[in-house]
Amino acid sequence: MSLMTKDQYIESIRNLKQKVYLFGELIENTVDNPIIRPSLNSVAMTYELAQDPQYEDIMTATSHLTGKKVNRFCHIHQSTEDLINKVKMQRLCGQKTGSCFQRCVGMDAFNAVYSTTFEIDEAHGTNYHENFKKYMIYVQENDLVVDGAMTDPKGDRGLAPNKQADPDLFLRVVERREDGVVVRGAKAHQTGMVNSHEILVMPTMTMGPDDKDWAISFSLPTDTEGIFSIYGRQSCDTRKLEEGVDIDMGNSTFGGHETLTIFEDVFVPNERIFLNGEVEFSGILVERFAGYHRQSYGGCKVGVGDVLIGASAVAADYNGAARASHIKDKLIEMTHLNETLYSCGIACSCEGCKTKSGNYQIDLLLANVCKQNITRMPYEIARLAEDIAGGIMVTMPSEKDFKDPKIGPYIDKYLKGVDHVPTEDRMRVLRLIENITLGTAAVGYRTESMHGAGSPQAQRIMISRQSNLNKKKELAKNIANIKELAKAEN
Amino acid sequence: MSLMTKDQYIESIRNLKQKVYLFGELIENTVDNPIIRPSLNSVAMTYELAQDPQYEDIMTATSHLTGKKVNRFCHIHQSTEDLINKVKMQRLCGQKTGSCFQRCVGMDAFNAVYSTTFEIDEAHGTNYHENFKKYMIYVQENDLVVDGAMTDPKGDRGLAPNKQADPDLFLRVVERREDGVVVRGAKAHQTGMVNSHEILVMPTMTMGPDDKDWAISFSLPTDTEGIFSIYGRQSCDTRKLEEGVDIDMGNSTFGGHETLTIFEDVFVPNERIFLNGEVEFSGILVERFAGYHRQSYGGCKVGVGDVLIGASAVAADYNGAARASHIKDKLIEMTHLNETLYSCGIACSCEGCKTKSGNYQIDLLLANVCKQNITRMPYEIARLAEDIAGGIMVTMPSEKDFKDPKIGPYIDKYLKGVDHVPTEDRMRVLRLIENITLGTAAVGYRTESMHGAGSPQAQRIMISRQSNLNKKKELAKNIANIKELAKAEN
Amino acid sequence: MSLMTKDQYIESIRNLKQKVYLFGELIENTVDNPIIRPSLNSVAMTYELAQDPQYEDIMTATSHLTGKKVNRFCHIHQSTEDLINKVKMQRLCGQKTGSCFQRCVGMDAFNAVYSTTFEIDEAHGTNYHENFKKYMIYVQENDLVVDGAMTDPKGDRGLAPNKQADPDLFLRVVERREDGVVVRGAKAHQTGMVNSHEILVMPTMTMGPDDKDWAISFSLPTDTEGIFSIYGRQSCDTRKLEEGVDIDMGNSTFGGHETLTIFEDVFVPNERIFLNGEVEFSGILVERFAGYHRQSYGGCKVGVGDVLIGASAVAADYNGAARASHIKDKLIEMTHLNETLYSCGIACSCEGCKTKSGNYQIDLLLANVCKQNITRMPYEIARLAEDIAGGIMVTMPSEKDFKDPKIGPYIDKYLKGVDHVPTEDRMRVLRLIENITLGTAAVGYRTESMHGAGSPQAQRIMISRQSNLNKKKELAKNIANIKELAKAEN
Amino acid sequence: MSLMTKDQYIESIRNLKQKVYLFGELIENTVDNPIIRPSLNSVAMTYELAQDPQYEDIMTATSHLTGKKVNRFCHIHQSTEDLINKVKMQRLCGQKTGSCFQRCVGMDAFNAVYSTTFEIDEAHGTNYHENFKKYMIYVQENDLVVDGAMTDPKGDRGLAPNKQADPDLFLRVVERREDGVVVRGAKAHQTGMVNSHEILVMPTMTMGPDDKDWAISFSLPTDTEGIFSIYGRQSCDTRKLEEGVDIDMGNSTFGGHETLTIFEDVFVPNERIFLNGEVEFSGILVERFAGYHRQSYGGCKVGVGDVLIGASAVAADYNGAARASHIKDKLIEMTHLNETLYSCGIACSCEGCKTKSGNYQIDLLLANVCKQNITRMPYEIARLAEDIAGGIMVTMPSEKDFKDPKIGPYIDKYLKGVDHVPTEDRMRVLRLIENITLGTAAVGYRTESMHGAGSPQAQRIMISRQSNLNKKKELAKNIANIKELAKAEN
Repeated sequence: MSLMTKDQYIESIRNLKQKVYLFGELIENTVDNPIIRPSLNSVAMTYELAQDPQYEDIMTATSHLTGKKVNRFCHIHQSTEDLINKVKMQRLCGQKTGSCFQRCVGMDAFNAVYSTTFEIDEAHGTNYHENFKKYMIYVQENDLVVDGAMTDPKGDRGLAPNKQADPDLFLRVVERREDGVVVRGAKAHQTGMVNSHEILVMPTMTMGPDDKDWAISFSLPTDTEGIFSIYGRQSCDTRKLEEGVDIDMGNSTFGGHETLTIFEDVFVPNERIFLNGEVEFSGILVERFAGYHRQSYGGCKVGVGDVLIGASAVAADYNGAARASHIKDKLIEMTHLNETLYSCGIACSCEGCKTKSGNYQIDLLLANVCKQNITRMPYEIARLAEDIAGGIMVTMPSEKDFKDPKIGPYIDKYLKGVDHVPTEDRMRVLRLIENITLGTAAVGYRTESMHGAGSPQAQRIMISRQSNLNKKKELAKNIANIKELAKAEN
Repeated sequence: MSLMTKDQYIESIRNLKQKVYLFGELIENTVDNPIIRPSLNSVAMTYELAQDPQYEDIMTATSHLTGKKVNRFCHIHQSTEDLINKVKMQRLCGQKTGSCFQRCVGMDAFNAVYSTTFEIDEAHGTNYHENFKKYMIYVQENDLVVDGAMTDPKGDRGLAPNKQADPDLFLRVVERREDGVVVRGAKAHQTGMVNSHEILVMPTMTMGPDDKDWAISFSLPTDTEGIFSIYGRQSCDTRKLEEGVDIDMGNSTFGGHETLTIFEDVFVPNERIFLNGEVEFSGILVERFAGYHRQSYGGCKVGVGDVLIGASAVAADYNGAARASHIKDKLIEMTHLNETLYSCGIACSCEGCKTKSGNYQIDLLLANVCKQNITRMPYEIARLAEDIAGGIMVTMPSEKDFKDPKIGPYIDKYLKGVDHVPTEDRMRVLRLIENITLGTAAVGYRTESMHGAGSPQAQRIMISRQSNLNKKKELAKNIANIKELAKAEN
Repeated sequence: MSLMTKDQYIESIRNLKQKVYLFGELIENTVDNPIIRPSLNSVAMTYELAQDPQYEDIMTATSHLTGKKVNRFCHIHQSTEDLINKVKMQRLCGQKTGSCFQRCVGMDAFNAVYSTTFEIDEAHGTNYHENFKKYMIYVQENDLVVDGAMTDPKGDRGLAPNKQADPDLFLRVVERREDGVVVRGAKAHQTGMVNSHEILVMPTMTMGPDDKDWAISFSLPTDTEGIFSIYGRQSCDTRKLEEGVDIDMGNSTFGGHETLTIFEDVFVPNERIFLNGEVEFSGILVERFAGYHRQSYGGCKVGVGDVLIGASAVAADYNGAARASHIKDKLIEMTHLNETLYSCGIACSCEGCKTKSGNYQIDLLLANVCKQNITRMPYEIARLAEDIAGGIMVTMPSEKDFKDPKIGPYIDKYLKGVDHVPTEDRMRVLRLIENITLGTAAVGYRTESMHGAGSPQAQRIMISRQSNLNKKKELAKNIANIKELAKAEN
Repeated sequence: MSLMTKDQYIESIRNLKQKVYLFGELIENTVDNPIIRPSLNSVAMTYELAQDPQYEDIMTATSHLTGKKVNRFCHIHQSTEDLINKVKMQRLCGQKTGSCFQRCVGMDAFNAVYSTTFEIDEAHGTNYHENFKKYMIYVQENDLVVDGAMTDPKGDRGLAPNKQADPDLFLRVVERREDGVVVRGAKAHQTGMVNSHEILVMPTMTMGPDDKDWAISFSLPTDTEGIFSIYGRQSCDTRKLEEGVDIDMGNSTFGGHETLTIFEDVFVPNERIFLNGEVEFSGILVERFAGYHRQSYGGCKVGVGDVLIGASAVAADYNGAARASHIKDKLIEMTHLNETLYSCGIACSCEGCKTKSGNYQIDLLLANVCKQNITRMPYEIARLAEDIAGGIMVTMPSEKDFKDPKIGPYIDKYLKGVDHVPTEDRMRVLRLIENITLGTAAVGYRTESMHGAGSPQAQRIMISRQSNLNKKKELAKNIANIKELAKAEN
């Protein structure tokens, strides 16, 4: 089996023994928990679409390791076409779920670790790349979801790992054994952890010689002894617990999640280690993972943007406002911004290049440009959606009121838009816009757009580094007939 | 008594018999309802501050009707200084509550109805202005909160009131008696209705000769027979119902609310009627109310903006990032935008003018410019706040997890920022930012900024009308030496 | 010969007998005219670079018509790689000239006419495609510059061609003969006309059945009897006439130009006609040409942007301000915006598709998104350049003052920046920034970015048409569980 | 005489013996020089309007020193109403000239020196304030134009005055005598210098104890021995030299100018000294002058903005595009932005306060916010103007071509817009837009908006300093129930 069905995937998660805490309680069954379930459904969609013949080209690929068909989320990119198809796959999944489908972070980790381990081995004579290839075959053969785990809690942002008051604020090796290492620490913002079979840990930033114990990369099953997660709370999360509620959730089927995942002295066997103290490669690994993940947002957020644009257009239809020139113009602007983001996702893929290890990497400058736009344009798209939706989006009575036999008819009467559309449908589309702009999906569409794959300033630093300013200075001096080219350089 | 204490106010609301539905149930006691209470506290703050000597100048004024000291929220503006002080009062209340304090809409209605009734009487020989002056004395003497009620449900935005499939989609007179009228319909987005003693109804837009029955303005006690409200649900509203929760609310003390308020064949006595069929004045009344209310946002949203800027600065302190130049620059940008909004609030006040009735009105062009900026800049301020806060704002575990004896210590350990600040304080400030950008207060800071006092397009129409483009064309033609001034005008 | 050298090109232009008026005079020798020469040099650069082995891949291509190597500016695109290389070629030329190099408009016309003539022939049994292929072989074999001529003067924008007070305000057929047609009218904004061997005329917009005489496409040598041009004046154009001036021109070598070109009853032989009354294809031809040309700006303007970013960085170096964090951040922002534009140019190329005729066309939606960004971001890049440059850019004394033996030394002394850089070099780079933001090159970098290949509103209409809003509405309805999909569509 | 007529003013300038160099030559008669004259006309307008009864209130004021009516440009502000009227006067002058009228810088210097000298005397027992009051009476009685001179060349921006390679890069005292001092150095960007009777010199920035010789303020007649100016060249300046040209200038009557003014060992008598080594007051003086001048831009640039909006509307009329919804919307946006700037100008005036010396000062925070917006919004207004104008603005043939008997008729025919408007008028308004966005007036409307009264970063520093971030942090902590207020402050 190298492609699981949606149902097989759900059963496979049910069989895990992950420890997950939510609202102070250990969740025995995450699969059927109403808070968590929508996020599982989003991941399940990545399996469902891979089985659909019309999406075969973009949802699946042929493994260069096994020659078999694999879900593209488990693929090591072999060409710029692969990179482009990745973005298209992500846009499709965003369109189908209107939320974060969580599986990208693993895919991006695979490709970053793949090329970096090759180069570490080259430099240090280590065996990480072979370890990792074996691991990838295992992942592909079993069609697994892998949580790519990078972000440490970081404590005081002004201090290096080894300078923190509490050394565990960056995940680290606390014991070294012959057969492996023992690690302690935590990873924050773990997207999709609860729905993952495996976790693939990477260091969170460039490290110095004194940070050796913090320069560690490895993978483990998510239900390994000593690993547990605390579920992050989202805006409007408990609407999913309200009895009989459907409309008020906006998107009752799909969602995303993040966890704070803790490693309480966890053992990692040698064959699952991919970096261990080679500090000079931690920055490279971070840069590559971040690069791939910054590209990803040029796909997934665009897909969610498509849903939000569509929802806004539907809301305008239902309000009887669709023909107003300012409404049309706002929909054009939303589309323009969304397609600008997509263009950035495509361009950094199209301009990708081959690494030493043979897989393909995005153009780093353009991938950072892509993500930087993601920290801005979805906010403006959301603002325009709120503009079109109208104030009723946030002053509308609850679904319970709407379904109440006494009060409901008044809501039905007075919240009617154009006459031929049921009030319920108008409420549904407004709740969907609320969901993406203020509710559970806003976590993904707004805050994750801001901070996922690195906060805006991280991209600016990369843009600066990749911009080749000296070449641009020379171009200008040539045209201005400034002869002393050498002098002012430095 | 012309100034109630905070406690007297709360008791006065407790004594009302308003009918309010929430989650399908009739709320017997709105004052102690955990969902509603924070909004009551915000209104109560307008009483508390009026008792504080240090704020006397801006929180109180001398009534021109009675010569007594009144809460400025009940004042008829007598000068541009009054208009300016109004804005300062609103900024102060926003700073103290971090939310919508709901009492502005009544104040703005008072001043719009005051000058308009004068002019209707002048044109039609009616007695509305005297009615209204008596009413104002009653309001001032009793220091009442009055819900200014303008927005009808409006149904199909493309159709006039008399053309709607259901004629009740705009509130209207359904029966005319000697001693008054009977009205039916609803008002949407009723800010602070549940915390109000009275409701002051106004028509929602310019009306034509066939809309006579819809051109009606009047006031009634909020617990009048036939009036009832359905409470609007807000993002994250039910966090207030969670047992033992405080941190997760972000702002556990203050809030705002809106209702859908229904008039089920309600009788209005003649002495409480301020417009009744004089259709040509409905547009004027709307324009004035909207003008005052667009000014208001140059105060209240600025106050909430101050809280959000402060919270962002605290979050940066706690993250150890306060010295980074990009963080400083973002705080400057937030301040710059916030003070631009304040400048607009002040300028439209300073450029105000006397109406025929003697009260003062804002400059309409600048008030619309003010509000138009309010539909943009708070969104950018919020975006920057989310940037500074970091992703943890939306992936943080719940307060229940934090207080759990088993799980809590892990959160305490791993969500620590700079060493000397308790993790709880860091969580508190992040939850406050979440509250304003995504949670209950986002309804006020974002969506209300967009749609309150009229959606953005409404301001653009007013800006166009007030811009005196012909004068500007003449200026240009003069300078360009274009002689045929008359020709191209039209 | 299928690749001319730069010198051969210049001689070939010298041998033309084009009629060009400038400042009220007929210019006998355009090649050596100081106002015109810099624009010739820019075109000449497209020949020079094509001879440079390091740029062979992007500057040349293999003709699918002849199998020979041709300048890419004369190429019919055979793949998405060709489309991408086109953008890279344009960025390179922009970098080398800091101005408009004028040859794109012909290339874009070739590709639009190529595929459209194929489809007209298919529909009407005409022979336009064969005519055009022969013409293309002639162009490629002789390495010609062809002015693509689309924009008619258009008179009253509210009226169709056949409704204008003067029917000549759109170029039209005034006589039909057996061997060809006679045309009258004008084309405005003719980029590079004076430096072109040929002119390729296309209609300017979608036309109706009554506009048959205006639906005409053809090519002619630029020195055909009856064709003459009036040279457009640019900001700062006469600095090029000032004696001994070099510094003050900012860019003394390169430039661009536009003309108003008039057709005074000009005969067109049948074999040079590519559309003649098939009105339903005029819109398609416009859309395709505009699409290609909107892509082009994602290359050429990016190249000029590179020069402007470089010049700003040099100015900061010379002012001693390069280490200030706000300066660095502005250079990052400029780079970010410039690379966003490039991403759009690349993406619409990468997503291109094959036409019926076999050549490749850009993705129309993304090409329009590209151009829409071009109407905004270069303005912001220019604003930031002016910020970094400092006010001295526009208050600096003239070069004559600087070279004056009495006054010059004072300027040298007082306009010194950092000590080791000659004042002259500082002046040079400031004049270059002035040139691009306010001077002759601003015409290309600002106004042409705005209006070239269609004004912003034209792109918005295309974005609306291409956005597939109905599909987006369905996505939203699916997620919101709205069942009545069919109803509200229309 | 305390109010000169326009003609008297012009004669008074003719009688000066200022030394001015332009294009390498000493200009004997600046008044009739075609390059310089338009700038004189703009200043003359400040005299003309002051004589016009309809503008008396805003153009004149009553001197608190003499009790006589004076031109408001010579007034020491006595109230917030004075500050507001100042802004209105500036908007009026901008509307009448479409350019920089140069007289503000003196007025702003007066008010800054007035209050600062009072405080220096208080601290040091000096006699500067009396000196300055006498000087002000002289200025008012003679209705003089005074060039406020602040900006030094500054050399390497990274170094203090006393650390520059050439100590003269900041103007300084080179000799101290009993009866006065001798100064050497230069002032850059001297707006209106050539049209001024006097120059009032101030230091350019905060200075340290080692910068004593550079901390100097004084006034002198502009034709004092040793002072001379080199005229700054502007975009399109030489169009004013073209024979018979009128249309191509866009604004043939009005303009502005800047000079580089040099002090070659100039003697200053004691009674004209207002600061001399009291280094700790140099920063205060700069801050105040900059504050007043940042307010000024909320008036003058708004007036020019009015002209540009009007010109754009006229251009749309002439193109037949005025009814297009996107054109209307762009005019609304331009108006919105322009009135936002005006609101900032008004607000910082309205919130002004009394200084120790008795005159009124703007609110420093809001004045800096005002200017910061000025560095952005005029650029967007200009961009929209270029959008509405169309590409023909920069591709239009010259006036010489238009007036040529052979070529002219073709231009007249083909550049016609709507039928009833002469082509010449269309050209005139397009050239006016070109003038403000790219030509001589762009220096004032764009670059001066950016850098005049301090570059954008200077305002950001002031906004940061004035923002009272600690108070905002407390507001946030109060609402978030964070108790340890003291701890994290610093």
